[in-house]
Amino acid sequence: MQQPTLVVRHIAIDTYRENIVYMARGCEICKSQGFQALSKLEVHFGKHKILATLNTTDNGLVQPGEIGLSSTAFRRLQAPEGSRVTLSHPNPLVSTDLIRHKLEGKRLNKNQFYSIIKDISAYRYSNIELTAFVVACAQKNLSETEIVHLTSAMIKTGEMIHWGLPMVLDKHCIGGIPGNRTTMIIVPIVAAAGLPIPKTSSRAITSPAGTADTMEAITNVQLDLHEMKKIVREENAVIAWGGSLSLAPVDDIIISVERPLSLDSEGQMVASILSKKKAAGSTHVLLDIPIGPTAKVKNQRAGSRLQKIFENVGRKIGLKIQVVFTDGRQPIGQGIGPCLEAQDVLKVLKNEPDAPSDLREKSIVLAGKLLEMSQTVAADRGEAIANELLISGKALAKFLNIAAKQGPLKRLELAPYHYVIKSHVTGVIHTIHNQKLAKVARLAGAPADPQAGIYLHKKLGHKVKKGEPLFTIYSKNEEDLSFAKKYMEENPDIFTT
Amino acid sequence: MQQPTLVVRHIAIDTYRENIVYMARGCEICKSQGFQALSKLEVHFGKHKILATLNTTDNGLVQPGEIGLSSTAFRRLQAPEGSRVTLSHPNPLVSTDLIRHKLEGKRLNKNQFYSIIKDISAYRYSNIELTAFVVACAQKNLSETEIVHLTSAMIKTGEMIHWGLPMVLDKHCIGGIPGNRTTMIIVPIVAAAGLPIPKTSSRAITSPAGTADTMEAITNVQLDLHEMKKIVREENAVIAWGGSLSLAPVDDIIISVERPLSLDSEGQMVASILSKKKAAGSTHVLLDIPIGPTAKVKNQRAGSRLQKIFENVGRKIGLKIQVVFTDGRQPIGQGIGPCLEAQDVLKVLKNEPDAPSDLREKSIVLAGKLLEMSQTVAADRGEAIANELLISGKALAKFLNIAAKQGPLKRLELAPYHYVIKSHVTGVIHTIHNQKLAKVARLAGAPADPQAGIYLHKKLGHKVKKGEPLFTIYSKNEEDLSFAKKYMEENPDIFTT
Repeated sequence: MQQPTLVVRHIAIDTYRENIVYMARGCEICKSQGFQALSKLEVHFGKHKILATLNTTDNGLVQPGEIGLSSTAFRRLQAPEGSRVTLSHPNPLVSTDLIRHKLEGKRLNKNQFYSIIKDISAYRYSNIELTAFVVACAQKNLSETEIVHLTSAMIKTGEMIHWGLPMVLDKHCIGGIPGNRTTMIIVPIVAAAGLPIPKTSSRAITSPAGTADTMEAITNVQLDLHEMKKIVREENAVIAWGGSLSLAPVDDIIISVERPLSLDSEGQMVASILSKKKAAGSTHVLLDIPIGPTAKVKNQRAGSRLQKIFENVGRKIGLKIQVVFTDGRQPIGQGIGPCLEAQDVLKVLKNEPDAPSDLREKSIVLAGKLLEMSQTVAADRGEAIANELLISGKALAKFLNIAAKQGPLKRLELAPYHYVIKSHVTGVIHTIHNQKLAKVARLAGAPADPQAGIYLHKKLGHKVKKGEPLFTIYSKNEEDLSFAKKYMEENPDIFTT
Repeated sequence: MQQPTLVVRHIAIDTYRENIVYMARGCEICKSQGFQALSKLEVHFGKHKILATLNTTDNGLVQPGEIGLSSTAFRRLQAPEGSRVTLSHPNPLVSTDLIRHKLEGKRLNKNQFYSIIKDISAYRYSNIELTAFVVACAQKNLSETEIVHLTSAMIKTGEMIHWGLPMVLDKHCIGGIPGNRTTMIIVPIVAAAGLPIPKTSSRAITSPAGTADTMEAITNVQLDLHEMKKIVREENAVIAWGGSLSLAPVDDIIISVERPLSLDSEGQMVASILSKKKAAGSTHVLLDIPIGPTAKVKNQRAGSRLQKIFENVGRKIGLKIQVVFTDGRQPIGQGIGPCLEAQDVLKVLKNEPDAPSDLREKSIVLAGKLLEMSQTVAADRGEAIANELLISGKALAKFLNIAAKQGPLKRLELAPYHYVIKSHVTGVIHTIHNQKLAKVARLAGAPADPQAGIYLHKKLGHKVKKGEPLFTIYSKNEEDLSFAKKYMEENPDIFTT
């Protein structure tokens, strides 16, 4: 039986990660094979095949006998325009049965996690299946052994960086605190101490800036692995965007459904962080867990629980983990948004008198711990050595070398429109709401506009008089500024006295 | 601040229930408001607004300054082509927080279920949010009280039929058994007894035929409410497709995500069935629960549990429910597929000597129970009266009257290609796999092709000799026949001896 074929057309519609194909409603192949809108089908071109979702169309976007491939589908199938492809009914995925088992409360083994993650990494899951998996693993539904299986499967389905070094240091903050750009201070301190700390960072997903966004305000962060290795050989460190490296790429797919649900998923958070670290070739990881009422981790008990899981899972996948609990009651530093945070970082590195002291102190503490983890300095000497490397200007010199090797240095500028939020009362600042403040910075335009964001004039414990500035919002245009102002008006509890 | 506007274009792409809007990647509004591929946005036209997902495009499908609306989005927004719309960031849905509460094991109250179901019915949920809700309610996660809330919310968000009658009988089978077309025999028997039984049936979703598909092999089933009411006044009954009536419409949306996951969801099954019955104006419902190893309900214990939930939830929403457990070990009747099942039904109604006796007997039992539920016949007289109405030809006459009033009668025909599956061994038929047999019938083309399907020559307990026919597959074309044959070869356990 000769399979009927369809002629490929590239329909440049960006459907993000989902493969969509477009076919004319009256198309004979659709009818005879019983495909209808939203049917899943497999498209074959030589040895390549993709699983795709069908959208039928009446408007001549494609003709009967043609198949339109969305940008994602077109890229993945690698069939040129005008070539001929065949369709088939996809075999049901075996791994989706496992999701049902997990939902029924069963434990999954190593092979079972691998078969799920492999199907996800091959883009064979619809959002429906993906969500069911994410929900099945949410809350505290995964045992430590299952988290190990999940983490290993996520590593195995991506690339691994091999630095060719016996020890590779790394640090990570589980997030939730605006500002807090310690990485860009810790990395040059540790590198100046002669220890390797190649940092592959992420861009912001829901926050006003990621380390990669902030570093990008100063220099280029889009490096390939070859360039990174060269800089690490010369400087012990690099601060680059890790997104091009395909480290545990399933993580991004999982996050794409976790985020809109604001799901709290202990197992997935641990797997997400540790799989990326392991794949990035790290051996020793310092984990910063901020604790505070509007941080991700609300109290010490939850923090200690998480610490135990991180350490145990880390050990089983061959990562040395040390956890540090830090103050998560408010942002660290004065700036929120790429350029504003980069300004804080440079002030600390340059030992300027108005450098934010909390950012400086936290960076010294964490850098000290990392030095001690490396066992190249005595167990109580880390902070002092880190402090010395900062005060002496060695950390700044190291940072400037790294930045210059990554690309031409940029001049920091702030967005032209700004608005000062003033206190309505006299008193002492009692709480600062991390998430709401982050939301204001995003509405103002960060991180898409790196010059946008917030500058904090007051922090916890500071005295404030009625009419005194609390913080300044920076925006590229009046419209974004007005979005941020409107949100401020609706949320008067961002600062309380 | 004047909101920028976009010009509407209808892009006739069928995206099923999801509102998709298409915008040029470089569009200023996209950039300034930070919308990117898969962003959720709200489109406003006068008082109308829809929540939609963005697909960006490079191929001139829409120009910068234009917004393309998929067929679904275009229909719902009701903005003509060329009119101007504005965009906004959607407010986060409050009800999705409730899903998280449910996932954390909390109980939801009446208002909370209503707010979720209302958002789903307004198409405000993405597939991600919808799946999370369905999974949160799956297995045995809903209490009886929660099932009542869910059912009530599903009724409230749709239309209600009022027949203006003190008693409206109905019957429903929870499904899973191929063939089993008792409804088309029970309804004319009950109606011939002078009792009102207006039947709004569904089309097949995953099975080879629904009652609406099978009735459609004989006559028209697409009636509006006015036409249905007229026939019910004259004949006490109608057998129509209920899909045009918007009865508990959220059910279809929920099923669209439940199906690909093959989730077992007790609470949602009960809510789905009872909300449709209540919305259809029924007062007394006979529920057929087949029990068998390849039926939906595997054993009597699970059946009894379900019976209790159906009865209790039914009572709380004002429905009188009676459950009958039936033999679910194999298909009922000889035919599977619309025309083949219709042929069985007509043979029974016509008292033909080769009418399938199991279909006849089951229909009599169920019709008898319904007559007894109505309290118009004595508690032990139902079956005898039902039998008399069938043998006398009164049920046939009633059926033909109803069918003729629904539309012109059609002539039953079977598909031209067929293939006989023969036994490889001599023995007694020991098991028949319901789902796999249904799958063969679907691959053969049913229900899309009403003449396709299966005719069973042997049933459980029958003796069979090597080489004797087990069943015949009917298809419209050789390709479908070959799909069905291929599946047969891969699944030799459909019949076992």
